Formats: sequence, C-alpha cells, structure tokens
Amino acid sequence: LKVFTLNSNPKLAEEIAEHIGTTLGKCTVSRFSDGEIQINIEESIRGCDVYVVQSTSSPVNEHLMELLIMIDALKRASAKSINIVMPYYGYARQDRKARSREPIAAKLVADLLETAGAGRVITLDLHAPQIQGFFGIPIDHLQGVPILSDYFEKKNLDDIVIVSPDHGGVTRARKMADRLKAPIGIIDKRRPRPNVSEVMNIIGNIEGKTAILVDDIIDTAGTITLAADALIEQGATEVYAACTHPVLSGPAVERIKHSQIKELIVTNSIPLSEEKRIEKVRELSVASLIGEAI
Amino acid sequence: LKVFTLNSNPKLAEEIAEHIGTTLGKCTVSRFSDGEIQINIEESIRGCDVYVVQSTSSPVNEHLMELLIMIDALKRASAKSINIVMPYYGYARQDRKARSREPIAAKLVADLLETAGAGRVITLDLHAPQIQGFFGIPIDHLQGVPILSDYFEKKNLDDIVIVSPDHGGVTRARKMADRLKAPIGIIDKRRPRPNVSEVMNIIGNIEGKTAILVDDIIDTAGTITLAADALIEQGATEVYAACTHPVLSGPAVERIKHSQIKELIVTNSIPLSEEKRIEKVRELSVASLIGEAI
Ligand SMILES: Nc1ncnc2c1ncn2[C@@H]1O[C@H](COP(=O)(O)O)[C@@H](O)[C@H]1O
Ligand SMILES: Nc1ncnc2c1ncn2[C@@H]1O[C@H](COP(=O)(O)O)[C@@H](O)[C@H]1O
Repeated sequence: LKVFTLNSNPKLAEEIAEHIGTTLGKCTVSRFSDGEIQINIEESIRGCDVYVVQSTSSPVNEHLMELLIMIDALKRASAKSINIVMPYYGYARQDRKARSREPIAAKLVADLLETAGAGRVITLDLHAPQIQGFFGIPIDHLQGVPILSDYFEKKNLDDIVIVSPDHGGVTRARKMADRLKAPIGIIDKRRPRPNVSEVMNIIGNIEGKTAILVDDIIDTAGTITLAADALIEQGATEVYAACTHPVLSGPAVERIKHSQIKELIVTNSIPLSEEKRIEKVRELSVASLIGEAI
Repeated sequence: LKVFTLNSNPKLAEEIAEHIGTTLGKCTVSRFSDGEIQINIEESIRGCDVYVVQSTSSPVNEHLMELLIMIDALKRASAKSINIVMPYYGYARQDRKARSREPIAAKLVADLLETAGAGRVITLDLHAPQIQGFFGIPIDHLQGVPILSDYFEKKNLDDIVIVSPDHGGVTRARKMADRLKAPIGIIDKRRPRPNVSEVMNIIGNIEGKTAILVDDIIDTAGTITLAADALIEQGATEVYAACTHPVLSGPAVERIKHSQIKELIVTNSIPLSEEKRIEKVRELSVASLIGEAI
C-alpha cells in the first residue's frame, strides 16, 4: 500500500499516511515552461495498491488534470489498484441540466477519472449523493457531520438549535441534530413578488437559542452570512456555522469577518490558505475518517 | 453546420466561420467565483453538425477542460456530430514513456476527448504523427509547411537552404525544401564527452547561403536561437526561422529579440499575445487551410 499526494492537500495526505502507519510515496509534480504538467513518480509501484490524495479544489482544472495524468502514469507503471482519495469533489454543483444545453460536469469528471484508470474513489459529502451513481467503479461516500458534531458536543453549548440554510440541507441538519440531541430549524427563502428582495422566513423555534448553521459547501458565504443576520434578528442569541468544504471564494473571508457568525467550523477537505486562517475559522482534520476508510 | 469558439482562438474561429460563409454560434464561456468553468450555449444545436475551435495552448489545463465541458454540453443538447478543431494539440510531447513511470499524456488527452463525446478531430502538425493512432475516431492531420513555404516563395530569397534544428525534424525540412526547390541541412547536436557542452555540427553546405530553420514547435526558443548562432558562425549569410506552433514560453521572446534570427514566421494555431507581437515575428493564418478541411 502506497500513498501519494499531488498539489491540493499535501498536509492532509501526510496525516493520512501517518494514520495508516506509512509515509508518503516519492513523487514530484511540477510544470514545464509552457504550463504543462510534469509528473515524476520516483519509486516503483508495480503490483502495489496505490492511494492518491487530491481534492479538485481551486485551481480546479489544474488539480483535476494533475490527478488524471497521475492516474495514467500509475496505470502504465502496473499499479495493482488505483484508489483516489478526493475529499472535495469539484464541479459537483453541475450535477443536472437545470436549463437547456447545460453540461453535467460532475458526470463528465466521473467519466474522466474512470477513463484515466481510477479503480475506486473515496470522497466526502458530495453536494448531491446521486453523484455516486455517476460512477461505474466503487465509491465510498464519507460524511463530515460526525466530525463537526463532535466539536460542538465538546463545546457543551446550552439550548442549541441546528439550522439548515435552505431546504436542500435539511437531511444534514437532521443528522447533526440527532447527534447533539437538539431541535432543527430551516431557513425558507422566499421572494414575495417578482423584483422584491427575498425574505428569510425561519421555520422552527430559535428564540433565545444558540443557532448552529450547517451546510456542505460555503463558497462566497452570501447565503450563510445573511442567514446569520436573519437568525439574530429573529431572536437567536448566538450563531455558529459549520461546513465540510470551505471553498471560500471571492468575498467570502471579508463577509465572514464582518458577519454575526461567532465561529465557523470547517474541515481540511480544502486546506485554508494563509489569508483564510482568520480567528473566527477553526479547521478540523478528516485524516482519521479517511484513514479508517482506506 | 455551426461553428463555436472557446477561449483559446476566438479570432481564428471567426476567420474560419467567415471562410465557410457563416458566423460564430452564440455561447459564453466564463468562470464561477471559485474558478469552475461555466458554459452557456445560447442557441439550439439539436441535429446540427457542430465545430468547436479550441487549441490546448497555455493555459493548457483551462483550455482542455473548457473543451471537454463544451463537448459534454453539446452531446447532451443532441448535436448531430461534434467536430473538434484543435489547431495546437497540447501535451503532444508526452507521447511515449521515455523513462519508467512516465505518463503518456497525449494518449490520455485523446481518450478524454472521446469520453466527453468528440466525434472527429481536425488538427495541425502533431508533434509526432503517431498521435493520430491514439484516437479511435476520425482525425484529420493538416500540415503547416505549405503555408510557411508559400510565404518564403513570395519573398523570392536567393540561394536558400532549409535547415532542420534536429534529426526529428528532417522530414519536415525535406518537404519545405521540395516546395522551395532548395537543398537541406541538419543540425547535429553532440556532446563530445560528459559534462562538456554540446557542439552544433552542421550537416550540409550552408556557406554563403540564406538559411531557413523550420520546426513544428518553438517553445523556450533555446534550440532555435543557438542553431541560428551556429549557422551564422559557420558561414550562412542570413537566418530565417519558421514554425507552425509558436508556444513561446518563458524566455522565448527575449531570446528571439536578441538572436541572429532575421525574421520568425509562425501560424495562428496559437495566437500571439500582445507582448509576443514583436517586429521580427510574422503571423500567418491557417483559417483557409482549416476551412477547406471542414
Ligand atoms: N462552481 C459554482 N459556483 C457557483 N454556482 C455554481 C457552481 N457550479 C454550479 N453552480 C450553480 O449552482 C446551482 C446548483 O446548486 P444547488 O441548487 O445547490 O444544487 C446551479 O444553478 C448551478 O448553475
Ligand atoms: N511541455 C513540455 N515542455 C518541454 N518539454 C516537454 C514538454 N512535454 C514533454 N517534454 C519533454 O520533451 C521530450 C520529448 O520531446 P521530443 O524528444 O522532441 O519528442 C521528453 O523528454 C519530454 O519529457
């Protein structure tokens, strides 16, 4: 069994290797002068079960191509099995045709991985669990909720309510609520009339409670910070937020900094770059969760 | 028949559309906040023969993913046929395992295009013509030599010799020489002993002649500018250079500026960015060549 890392999550890869009692395989991933990816695998992997750790986080197209080219190299070097550890699955939000002539990039990515030669995929909190069905190879779908819940359990907060920022996330909020023995709330965005701005109607009792907003992805952080405002306005005493995948693009960090969110809990499925390591944000590791699945 | 362009060669795509008497199909290719590609095809293509113009030039991974996602969208929108016009085929230099555990990225790219749903590929001067065999779908392999030769023919230079900068390019030099009724020369790089710098030995008579160096790709321009020095040093009166694909990465432009190359002739298989449009460089269009192949 050998574990290799590409450029998205080198630190997590090291933790995973440590968890299963090994060290990372030797491999350099660089660029030629014209920007083409150059991969050198520096030890024999013939007959080995190989695990490659790579999230398709930003820069998504670079990370995805690194992964595909790595898989090609491993296949041609006679690896016994090629297992992809992809904590964050990029393009997951393009998972259906919502409008005419849209691509389904999440399915394309699945096909590309299989074509390159992937034999198994281990991933975490797919934006839609249906994406599992896009694969013809085994896929292990892990969940971040237990890790996030454990954190709040240890914090021992009084009188909490778990809130989903939209209808799509209610199942996730329900799971966290079960673990924390708390009630749930749902934010029900509605546009009363066309060209009138959305109102955030809250379903469930949050008055005087500590609200924990939970989502799979926080991207530009628009939804989550507005949800926090609505919760405070309607009587919540404090608002925490939690998500598995901190995409945090564009204005996200500024929004969170200036928001009413007291603390944001995320995992290292996407590592936080320096400017994202602000005081409010706390990162939990998924290394042991993934280590167990290997 | 509809022609679409992505982000690599919009101007060439327009010229091709014009050549075949149509205009470009409406489509926007942009990025979401996190860098994921967003494609909107803004007119029906159901039942159409669609041509997509895209070189996988730098940024190669962005351009390749744009193309794959576009193919996916066209396939799902019931295009009758999906034809890829890829004047420059990126990753073509990773076309074999020269060392253990190397990927063959050129074959991977072929497989990815087929998986996405490409039905036919039109390309120009593949770094190795064997790459045609990497495809299971029809591939039209066009050649830049006639366009480059025509330019020199019109220039009416006296007493010329066509020089290949290495052994790999002799066939190409031979073709140009036949068209221009000129003799050929070959630069034979050799390292006399390990750790002694290479010497450029010239095979063929270049004394007092105008040399035309011809290659498929000029990337960092190291080889071609050193070849020009060697030709002048050994008696050539002037040196021109010509290539199909002006990759021109890293120090290329500076090297060419300060080299003994009098003029560099290239095609628009890769468009020249502003800083590459220096006086010495002349760009010829492959629009009609490709237009004829469609
Ligand atoms: N990378 C992305 N960033 C922002 N929005 C996206 C992205 N990819 C897809 N979408 C859009 O997100 C919506 C799907 O999200 P959801 O409704 O939460 O499943 C669709 O309207 C997509 O067009
Ligand atoms: N994008 C690239 N830039 C520079 N060298 C490359 C690139 N891709 C592959 N190569 C190397 O170029 C060599 C093949 O070129 P050639 O011998 O001309 O076919 C191999 O040693 C490759 O490792």
